[in-house]
Amino acid sequence: MDRFSDDFRAGLHDLMRWRRDVRHFRTDPVDEALLKQCLDTFSLAPSVGLSEPWRILRVTSDAARTQAIENFTDSNTQALAGFTGDQAKLYASLKLSGMREAPEHLAIYCDDSTSKGSGLGAASMPEMRRYSVVGAITLMWLTARSLGLGIGWVSVLDPVRLNADLEVPKGWTLVAYLCLGWPAENTTTPELETKGWETRAPALHIESR
Amino acid sequence: MDRFSDDFRAGLHDLMRWRRDVRHFRTDPVDEALLKQCLDTFSLAPSVGLSEPWRILRVTSDAARTQAIENFTDSNTQALAGFTGDQAKLYASLKLSGMREAPEHLAIYCDDSTSKGSGLGAASMPEMRRYSVVGAITLMWLTARSLGLGIGWVSVLDPVRLNADLEVPKGWTLVAYLCLGWPAENTTTPELETKGWETRAPALHIESR
Repeated sequence: MDRFSDDFRAGLHDLMRWRRDVRHFRTDPVDEALLKQCLDTFSLAPSVGLSEPWRILRVTSDAARTQAIENFTDSNTQALAGFTGDQAKLYASLKLSGMREAPEHLAIYCDDSTSKGSGLGAASMPEMRRYSVVGAITLMWLTARSLGLGIGWVSVLDPVRLNADLEVPKGWTLVAYLCLGWPAENTTTPELETKGWETRAPALHIESR
Repeated sequence: MDRFSDDFRAGLHDLMRWRRDVRHFRTDPVDEALLKQCLDTFSLAPSVGLSEPWRILRVTSDAARTQAIENFTDSNTQALAGFTGDQAKLYASLKLSGMREAPEHLAIYCDDSTSKGSGLGAASMPEMRRYSVVGAITLMWLTARSLGLGIGWVSVLDPVRLNADLEVPKGWTLVAYLCLGWPAENTTTPELETKGWETRAPALHIESR
């Protein structure tokens, strides 16, 4: 039944402790074979109704990269405006994206209009399709990390503007904009903790019913 | 840089190939220490702004379990009504939840009103909090599997009714209702494929921009 060794489990725990959200990248390229190995993880991921609703845009052109970076810059300026005093100062000092340095940009979408799976499992909770995409990304995150690569998930973006810039088909929803590359440093402490923005909760919130 | 061995990566690939969505459980209980080991995975998971918005309800009372099972039964009857002919026959033959047999039920919520993280990274994409919860669940899925345990994600549920039955605080959103226990069988083929509902896509959908 239990085919996994204590050694493997210790490695898995270690892999999960590594910081996955990388914002500091080296600029050297990622080998195509390694990128493929990361993306192949999607084909192992479970999805609601076996709908496999993930759609992947590889953002490689200078024009599209620049538009995405400007989208982040504008969205970040707007987010900063929501803070005041010391918190605003701290926010402004944070590096929230490695978009300029990262050699690879991936925009990951969910095709909410897919007929694959015939809607099984998504009738009362249609968000399950997008959650399936998030699960697949999480698995890819681990694959990348096991190869020494880092991924940064950029959420300070205006999705409507991004969809227009990337000429995304109707019915697709942005789930994640990912930077992928070689991390400039490796750490097990979240950067927001190091910089004093927030700390880990001391205990998990569990209630019984 | 790359601290993970080829052996470990082969194990990780193997772990990801195992079917995670389990609907056939043995009824014997899961040791508290093992359950804790699964749940502790949440404390390793990344989250937007380090907001750790996950809230866990352990559904243990007969009353609450029964309500959840009835919710599934009614939602499934409603979903079945959306199909006709052979597809309806096939749908009716599928076992879409192991709620009756599974020794543990977990309702996983997202606290969209949390002040933790001060909203960082969730201003333009507030769904990022729920996606963080999905990522944490995905990691727990792997931890459970590495221990020989199985998890089934039940999405054929009416969330509004479940929230009322479980007396969930306002501002919490249902992300997942999970069954956890010992799988009755182990397989690497999705059950929906075995039963002829849907097949894996032959290739990943990747476009360039």
